[in-house]
Parts: sequence; C-alpha cells; structure tokens
Amino acid sequence: MEASKSKVLGVLGGGQLGRMLIQSAINYNQDIYILDPDPQAPCSEIAQKFVCGSLKDFDTVYAFGKDCDVITVEIESVNTEALEKLESEGKKVFPQPHIIRLIQDKREQKQFYKNSGIPTADFILTASQAEVMAQSDFLPAVNKLGKDGYDGRGVQVLRNEGDFDKAFDAPGLLEKLIDFDREIAVIVARNEKGDLKIYPSVECAFHPTANLVEFLFAPAEINSQLEERAQEIAKEVILKLDMVGLLAVEMFVTKEGEILVNEIAPRPHNSGHHTIEANFTSQFEQHLRAVMNWPLGDTRLRCPAAMINLLGEEGFTGEAIVEGKEEAMSEQGVYIHLYGKKITKPFRKMGHVTLLDQSLEQLKVRANRIKNLIKIKS
Amino acid sequence: MEASKSKVLGVLGGGQLGRMLIQSAINYNQDIYILDPDPQAPCSEIAQKFVCGSLKDFDTVYAFGKDCDVITVEIESVNTEALEKLESEGKKVFPQPHIIRLIQDKREQKQFYKNSGIPTADFILTASQAEVMAQSDFLPAVNKLGKDGYDGRGVQVLRNEGDFDKAFDAPGLLEKLIDFDREIAVIVARNEKGDLKIYPSVECAFHPTANLVEFLFAPAEINSQLEERAQEIAKEVILKLDMVGLLAVEMFVTKEGEILVNEIAPRPHNSGHHTIEANFTSQFEQHLRAVMNWPLGDTRLRCPAAMINLLGEEGFTGEAIVEGKEEAMSEQGVYIHLYGKKITKPFRKMGHVTLLDQSLEQLKVRANRIKNLIKIKS
Repeated sequence: MEASKSKVLGVLGGGQLGRMLIQSAINYNQDIYILDPDPQAPCSEIAQKFVCGSLKDFDTVYAFGKDCDVITVEIESVNTEALEKLESEGKKVFPQPHIIRLIQDKREQKQFYKNSGIPTADFILTASQAEVMAQSDFLPAVNKLGKDGYDGRGVQVLRNEGDFDKAFDAPGLLEKLIDFDREIAVIVARNEKGDLKIYPSVECAFHPTANLVEFLFAPAEINSQLEERAQEIAKEVILKLDMVGLLAVEMFVTKEGEILVNEIAPRPHNSGHHTIEANFTSQFEQHLRAVMNWPLGDTRLRCPAAMINLLGEEGFTGEAIVEGKEEAMSEQGVYIHLYGKKITKPFRKMGHVTLLDQSLEQLKVRANRIKNLIKIKS
Repeated sequence: MEASKSKVLGVLGGGQLGRMLIQSAINYNQDIYILDPDPQAPCSEIAQKFVCGSLKDFDTVYAFGKDCDVITVEIESVNTEALEKLESEGKKVFPQPHIIRLIQDKREQKQFYKNSGIPTADFILTASQAEVMAQSDFLPAVNKLGKDGYDGRGVQVLRNEGDFDKAFDAPGLLEKLIDFDREIAVIVARNEKGDLKIYPSVECAFHPTANLVEFLFAPAEINSQLEERAQEIAKEVILKLDMVGLLAVEMFVTKEGEILVNEIAPRPHNSGHHTIEANFTSQFEQHLRAVMNWPLGDTRLRCPAAMINLLGEEGFTGEAIVEGKEEAMSEQGVYIHLYGKKITKPFRKMGHVTLLDQSLEQLKVRANRIKNLIKIKS
C-alpha cells in the first residue's frame, strides 16, 4: 500500500530536462520541487515548488534537499558536498554524489574508463597550455577542459601544431582524434533494486561548428553485433559506476568496427528526446522510475524516429519568436517541443522536434526540411 | 511570424481534462489560465495562472475571460451569458457559447438532433414526474434530467410502471430504451479555418451500476460500413453545430445495424483518453490545435489499446491511497495516469490506465486484470 502522494522528488536544475521530467511526473501525481538560479527557468511555472537559488552553493543545495525525499539532477554542475551530506543524513540521492563528481571532471572520467577496462580513446592528462604544446607527437587530438565544459564549450580539435593557440591553459586532457564512422548513444537505466533496462542505440549527427547534436536518428544503422556490443558497454559503465538513475553513454564507432566510449551523462539526455513519442517508455519517465525505485519501463522503439534540435538562429539575440511552427505542424508525424525560454541567442537549445515515419531514408530527407522550416529568431 | 508565447488560453474547469490539456500545451509553450471553484483542483499546481472561483457566476467568468485571448471549457456547466458577452467583445470562445448552452440541456440536445436529421432514439419531452407516469406505453425507456446531469447522475432506466418512482420530477425527457449491440464513440475536431479530422471509433463498456465508462477498447470491433457511417454522423454533428473545437459523439449500434447518437460532449472526453499513447495525436493536443486555430493532427491509431477508468473504490471516502501501482507498472504497455485528486469517494474518477497490446483479445483479458490490480482506497 502506498499513498498516491508520498515522496517529494527534488531536482537540481530547472531547464528543459526538468521540464520534460515534470510533464511525465504529472501522470504519477509525483510532486517535483525544482532548484534553479534563473527565476524564468523552463520549470519555474510548472513545478509544484520552485526555489530560485544557486546550484553551486552548499547552503542553498542543502536547504533545498532537506525538504525532499529523493534528490536528482538535470545538470552536473551542482554542489556535490551538499549532496553528500544529504546522502549521509539518509536522503536518497540519485545519481549518487560521487558519480556526479566524477562526471564534473573529464580527467577523472577518462581515468575511470581506463581503470575499469571500458574502451575509450587514448589520452594524456595535461595541466596547462604548455603541457599540451609538448605533445606534438600525439596530434591530431582533441583538447578537453577538465571542468565546466558544457554544450560544446570546453572542447577544441588540435589537428597540428598550428592549432596550439586554441589549447586550454588549465587542467584538461588530450585525447586521440578518432576517425570514426559514426557517433551513437545508448541510454541505460537502473533502479535501487538493481533492475536494469537499455534503450536501443541511436545515431547522432553533430552541428559542423557548434559541437552540438543537430540531428538524431533511431535506430542507429549498425549491425546486430555492434548493437549488442554497444548495449554491453552501456551496461558495463552503469554497473561499474554502481549507479542508480538514467545514464546516457555517447560512443564512437570507428572505421575498424570498434566501439569507444566518448562521454557519459548521468541524467536524461539530448540523445533520448525522441523516446517521448518513439519508444514505449520515454527517458523522462524512465529516469523517474529509476530514481523512485519503481519498476523500469519497456525501452523498445515503436517506430523509426528522428530528432531535430531547435537551436537559436545565428545573428539573433533577444525575445524568442518561432517561425514556421504551423507549417511544420501540418505535416504528419511532427512533434514540436518548445522549452519556454523567453530569450534566444545563437545555438541556445530552444526546443526540439521529434519526427516519426516509416523509414530512416524518409526521416533523413524530412529532418533536413523541418530544420530549415522552423527557425528561432528574435 | 508568430511570437512563441502570444495568446493566453483560458479554460473553464480545472479537473483532469484541463490537467491533461496543460501537459500537452507545455510542448507548445502555450500559457493556460484555469478557473475552478476547488482550490485543490487537479490543475491548481501546474497552470500558469490558477483562479479559484465559480464557473457559474457571471462576474467571475467574465473577469477571468477578459485576461485571456481564447477561452474554452473542460466542463459544460458554466455561465454561458458571460461567455456570450466575451464573444461579443471579440474574444474567441470555442466551443461557441450557444453550443455549450445546447449541451447544458438534454432536451434541447435531442431537439437539435431531430431538427438536423441526426439519427437518435425516439423521445418525448416531459416536464414532471406526472408527465413521465402518463407514458406507460412508451416504456421501456430512459428518463433523463434536462439539466445538471453529469457522470452518470440524472439518468434512470424505467423498464416498467414499477420503476416510475425513480422518474424525475423536473423538466427532462423520456427516450426509448435501445436494445443495442454495442456503444461506440467517435471524436471529431474542427478549427476556425474549417479543417476537420475524425478519430477512429472506440468501443465503450459501462460499469453495470454506476453508469460510467469502465473500459474502452480501440478500435471498435465493427465492420467498415458501420465505421464509415459512424464517422459520417460525427462529421455531420460538428458541421450542423458549426462548432470549433473537439467534439465527442457517443453512439449506439443497434442489433439491426443502425447507428443512433446518444450524447455529445464539446470537449476532450473520457472516450479519448487512450489517444495520449495509442494515437499519433492525443485528443488533448487536438483540442488545443482546434481552439487555437492551428493545423489539426493525425488521428490514426498507432496500435490497439484499452482504457480503464480508475474509480474510487466503493466503501472508501477520504485521502486517496493507490494500491497496486508498482505491480501494474512492471507490465509492458501499462500507462498510469493519476489526476492529483487528494480525496477519493466511491466512483470518483481518480485516474485512468491506458493499455497497449497487439490484439483486442489480449487487451480484454489484461484490462480486467489491471482493473482488479489497481485500487483507489483511503
């Protein structure tokens, strides 16, 4: 027997991921409290309780967490000391604070892969620009900032010595540039009881300059051995982390047919947005099920799907205006999601579109057209 | 070019229908204001603005509507004079006030069918219990109260003269009891531009005593001629009403293969709840599209579905407790929707479950099991 409104779920971060989590939680009459520094955050108007405050301040996070029964995140840059204290006092914190701390530092993340035998690109830790510049032999490589990179910031491709001026003069790492065939992502979930469910892999196509996912296609066009291997790796990562919650694992498929883990995110992720319409259980509901220790849902794909990120158009900053919405809505299989952000700026994630169709071929043609149809301007 | 947050949609009523409408509207960044007399109404915590006040009071409804651009309803018992004044002052009110008034009175509704040539059971208008009792020859019949019937209240079956003590002593009607083969429902939507879309018909199974839909199955098991005829009738009703919005048309299929309109509801309806998961466009999104004059969505069914109403268990009144939720969630294709009502009472609509499966045969077995599994007690 369980009361229909028993436990409060607190979420650190009130952006679009929290917003879609709330939409899903309404079905279960699950109260959600949100902490976010932006009074106009996408969750501000629909959370049962919205607290405006810093995610990085110990006292703010601790006080927020005291009012909740279960605490989760929709962004990794949060105060982990407060979460650890809350955990030590008996609160459920999923993903666990030590995992959030690991994710906050790409250097530790890479070390974890290495120590756990998880396949990943070769790397060297670097502490300064000078240390990067000493590694000419390691090029071409990707220079990643250890901390505070997000949505494409904190990553630089260094093809030759001429690119050294772009190297970060801060603790980071240098990773072998992988000549990959494709980039895929697998989402895996695990609850406290230990139930584990894996979504089919999807294929990500990145924006040529902004280092952001521009399109996503589900399922990924890879053979069954690669699919199995990708699922196996995702499972291995969540088990080695001993993590409870939802984990997105981004991977490279190399031209030699090897799979290497690129990055992981311990929360709902851009590569799972299509699951709202395309899978039997959305990643947001699955996250909820995982952190609340409910049974996990069916991850199967119902039909092929594409996802198009609606990014703020270059050259426009200010109050957002959506162009082409109604024209897109008149097509079959078009699902628009706007995140309620009042202000647009170049490449800001303002929304996304899920597209359902019979085949990946049709989806590829249509995804391009929809992207050119809907524009976020000001 | 359209601003992403341009028009405010006001909804009279803040129950579960408004709640599911809000869940859908979040995708479009569409602000919704709600008016409801209950401060703890299911919409109270998720509406952009929640006004606590009477739906029947002219001044309250008028003042509420003045703050909105488009006004709709999720319940019919509202002050139509205020809506007419708002309409005359240039507000968009969908469904139009004269249609809401028609629906408020089952006598006028029946006259409308008759005058418009829409097939419906024969009937006699009655003003009092004495007038009903004068109609022995018309039995067996259904005695319906003209006004204020809702969710099974205001309807009595009179099989013979011995049932006359149950007859209403108020303006109502006596309708021939139809020896029907099955009850079906068709939802149709129309926007201001005149676009019109019809959902496939569904089959409704009523609770033996509470006169409430207990189960729903989609699609209805009827042949293609009957399906076509049902769609044609639904279309005829919305066109004869010249209505903008979403209309649910409940119909009898008689043993002779005739289709008769039973009742209509100019809003999202219990017979369309399965569309959230089972159809390409949910009835809630379709309602939004219709009243906002956006293009209408694809109404096709994605797979067979059942819907089970979660009614308050007999013998329990008080703070609601949901039994069996997690056990149900562990099954594939089970979608639980709880409406956020704090207090349960016998037969109160507390939530619903949508069930997806390969075939209607499997769904029928599973629907019964789920109904016995999830119980709303106190």
